[in-house]
Amino acid sequence: MPPSPIETGDLAVDVIDITDRDDPRVDDFRDLNSVDRRPDLPVLPGGRPGKGLVIAEGVLVVARMIASRFSPHAFLGVDKRLTELRADLSDPSVAGLPFYRASAEVMADIVGFHLNRGVLGVARRPETLAAADLATTASTIAVLEGVNDHENIGSVFRNAAGLGVDAVLFGAGCADPLYRRCVRVSMGHALLVPFASAANWPHDLTMLRDNGFEIVSLTPDESAVPLSQAVTGAKVAFMVGAEGPGLTETAMRAGDIRARIPMARGTDSLNVATAAAIAFYERASRAER
Amino acid sequence: MPPSPIETGDLAVDVIDITDRDDPRVDDFRDLNSVDRRPDLPVLPGGRPGKGLVIAEGVLVVARMIASRFSPHAFLGVDKRLTELRADLSDPSVAGLPFYRASAEVMADIVGFHLNRGVLGVARRPETLAAADLATTASTIAVLEGVNDHENIGSVFRNAAGLGVDAVLFGAGCADPLYRRCVRVSMGHALLVPFASAANWPHDLTMLRDNGFEIVSLTPDESAVPLSQAVTGAKVAFMVGAEGPGLTETAMRAGDIRARIPMARGTDSLNVATAAAIAFYERASRAER
Repeated sequence: MPPSPIETGDLAVDVIDITDRDDPRVDDFRDLNSVDRRPDLPVLPGGRPGKGLVIAEGVLVVARMIASRFSPHAFLGVDKRLTELRADLSDPSVAGLPFYRASAEVMADIVGFHLNRGVLGVARRPETLAAADLATTASTIAVLEGVNDHENIGSVFRNAAGLGVDAVLFGAGCADPLYRRCVRVSMGHALLVPFASAANWPHDLTMLRDNGFEIVSLTPDESAVPLSQAVTGAKVAFMVGAEGPGLTETAMRAGDIRARIPMARGTDSLNVATAAAIAFYERASRAER
Repeated sequence: MPPSPIETGDLAVDVIDITDRDDPRVDDFRDLNSVDRRPDLPVLPGGRPGKGLVIAEGVLVVARMIASRFSPHAFLGVDKRLTELRADLSDPSVAGLPFYRASAEVMADIVGFHLNRGVLGVARRPETLAAADLATTASTIAVLEGVNDHENIGSVFRNAAGLGVDAVLFGAGCADPLYRRCVRVSMGHALLVPFASAANWPHDLTMLRDNGFEIVSLTPDESAVPLSQAVTGAKVAFMVGAEGPGLTETAMRAGDIRARIPMARGTDSLNVATAAAIAFYERASRAER
């Protein structure tokens, strides 16, 4: 056992030193980069195995996981990060949970690479929310269709949280928002901003309209209304598609209005998370104008 | 020599087949990922060698390099990309330049990894522009301080081009905007949007003010003016700092006004390129309100 450089007596978690990379107690943190064994692989349809866990990475994201509805059941980290997380790890909500403390080398052996951020939290996926839940509680929603890039989804969550968007609704063709890389890029906001997947796409958009939402489709189409003139409702859903193809015509027909961000000639559309941030800003800044 | 699947007679470039990875004619494309040998390493002060070349990667970016002031002197690519670039490679501006055609395998051996985008252009760095040139010709300028992340700089260029910003001015502490990764993330706009480095930072900002620019510092500081109320001048320079530290107090004092994007409580500042995009949008959308 290495000596304990910090006094662990005031922590709510149970600090357990790990010196053997094969210790089965840290199996939930193993092979994070493995395509087919990573612990945050969703439980797949057709019986294909996946642990369906959620991994938080780094001090900030682990702290946000503790504050979220994704209750962690264990942590793995180096002593330095344990110290940095002292306040969060003293919270009654983590009482009795194991904090597996390891050297950077043993930790690298477990997760499969050297993890700069030095600390991980792991949670089971809670029950998913329903689109109807979002429709009745939110006043600004981001709706994504075909966004299959994890970093873009993470950035949408980060921008949503920063600019006052209450929820994210996933239409067809989107990637898993609970993949580690997405959670990290979101700065943990993928765990804090409520989200749901539309079971019936794009029909579920009528649920938003029935709850008073104006559904604004973002498109580079020059015949669309300028964004600054499109956002007028008390409840707004901004719908964005993947870079390149954009929203499907079917999805846009299910929306209320098509809006465009003014773009210079000869340029491409903006990155999807950037376009979404501009729409969120348009709404957030409305009260100040 | 492999057979030529396309008719190269109407091309302005001179197609030369490369089958030997050690062929010295393709030295400018060698070891693209090497920290100390990559050809786009700037010529460093103190006599340390660097080729100081600029590398364009992929069909779109190579086409933009051809259209830019960064005149390419050679290309390297697989036959498929040569075909896709046919129109651009028939332009008189590239007449007689070598297009080194290689298999994907030989190309991977030369550049040091498998390059999905399959085509490269290389140019020498042209004379740098002066801050004074930007101040007299532009009406919207992005000013960066301490932004040392290549992808963020690339995104700033992309957003600048898309949202009608005329030029980028680099203050102290910024990374090289002509690194391959930056050029790629910018979608080639780092080659098209004029930029300059401030020789005397932040004193050179007075040059902008003398030319009628309102200098707006973006900051999360709650005592700052909302961005929607800050952007009023006919000429505007938006100043942004790196994620985390933000702008230095010295830089902000050299500006005219501090502006904030309305942020939700308990969230972090936005990514620097996203914050810049929002400022660019605020200005671009002003005419429509």
